[in-house]
Amino acid sequence: MTPKKQRGQLIVLSGPSGVGKSTVIAELLSDRPDIFFSVSFTTRQPRVGEADGVNYRFVSKDIFQDMIARDEFLEYACYVDNFYGTSLKVIEEQLDAGIDVLLEIDVQGAAKVREKCPDALLIFISPPSFEELSRRLRGRHTDDETVIKERLQQALEECRQIPKYDFLVVNDKVSHAVEEILAILTAESCRTKYRMNVMEGV
Amino acid sequence: MTPKKQRGQLIVLSGPSGVGKSTVIAELLSDRPDIFFSVSFTTRQPRVGEADGVNYRFVSKDIFQDMIARDEFLEYACYVDNFYGTSLKVIEEQLDAGIDVLLEIDVQGAAKVREKCPDALLIFISPPSFEELSRRLRGRHTDDETVIKERLQQALEECRQIPKYDFLVVNDKVSHAVEEILAILTAESCRTKYRMNVMEGV
Repeated sequence: MTPKKQRGQLIVLSGPSGVGKSTVIAELLSDRPDIFFSVSFTTRQPRVGEADGVNYRFVSKDIFQDMIARDEFLEYACYVDNFYGTSLKVIEEQLDAGIDVLLEIDVQGAAKVREKCPDALLIFISPPSFEELSRRLRGRHTDDETVIKERLQQALEECRQIPKYDFLVVNDKVSHAVEEILAILTAESCRTKYRMNVMEGV
Repeated sequence: MTPKKQRGQLIVLSGPSGVGKSTVIAELLSDRPDIFFSVSFTTRQPRVGEADGVNYRFVSKDIFQDMIARDEFLEYACYVDNFYGTSLKVIEEQLDAGIDVLLEIDVQGAAKVREKCPDALLIFISPPSFEELSRRLRGRHTDDETVIKERLQQALEECRQIPKYDFLVVNDKVSHAVEEILAILTAESCRTKYRMNVMEGV
């Protein structure tokens, strides 16, 4: 008897570029297919293997600016010259239907979500060390050295925002990181405030 | 890389008589033998199969009163004419050594722990329903009908205190209840405040 809480839980995952967020999210969603992964809109170019609607909704800068003008974003941010944004409407529909929603957004976006949705769960995924992050970014072979250095500097800035997150999960091993995130979600669903309808007649 | 948080976590489990706390705790401790289960002092008579130092520290009312006078309890309470109390000294030693401490105490005791230790995790274990609780109490064959009715009335009062707890775990099946408690403890250990020493040099 595990009653469904009335509204879905909003879950925010952040972490520096190269930390392995995509892999962690893919495993998490395979364990919890009931979670709705809300794909961000972005103006950046797709990487090899990325598809529109799967990894991101890839749109032009003009379209993105129009969406900003129409106030369609829960949050949006600019990062290395590209825009990233989260559609408010899509998320609200899922949460209202009692479905948990997962967002992968950067630290600026997470701070904005926290402001608008104080109950959101903010989870930061960190690498075991900066040396390891540097290794992973170089191993990806998708960026040149200047971009990698920029990303590492960005990672340092991002990690300074960790105190604003509820939880810190170290991605030393994907299965371990996913286990911890699953535990966080299970624990959250056990919160008294979501389960007050368990004992009838009390 | 899972750094040990510096101080142990204080975990409080409560729940009505007959809900199956002892069984849940036994399974929990077999999964997490690193947790220190702090045995309460009590003035009640041992039940069949209970041993001093294992289930409780069974003491006389005189000794209990002396301990109250010496301010040796984190909390103590009276329940169905018997005293139950938690030794402050024992707990502090374990927490300071970085060891998680589990207490099984009643709702009055839990409220006192919350006052003195705001970071304590308060978990309430509830039966799936009152009908089920009544069945379990009668199935135990240890109490007569008057005591059982008293316990059910007491259970109703206790369940009204659920909003004061952080988490509500329904003991529909012991393994499921234990799984949820384990998830709560894992999630708590992922809290940013306990893991700020993860990323060196940030």
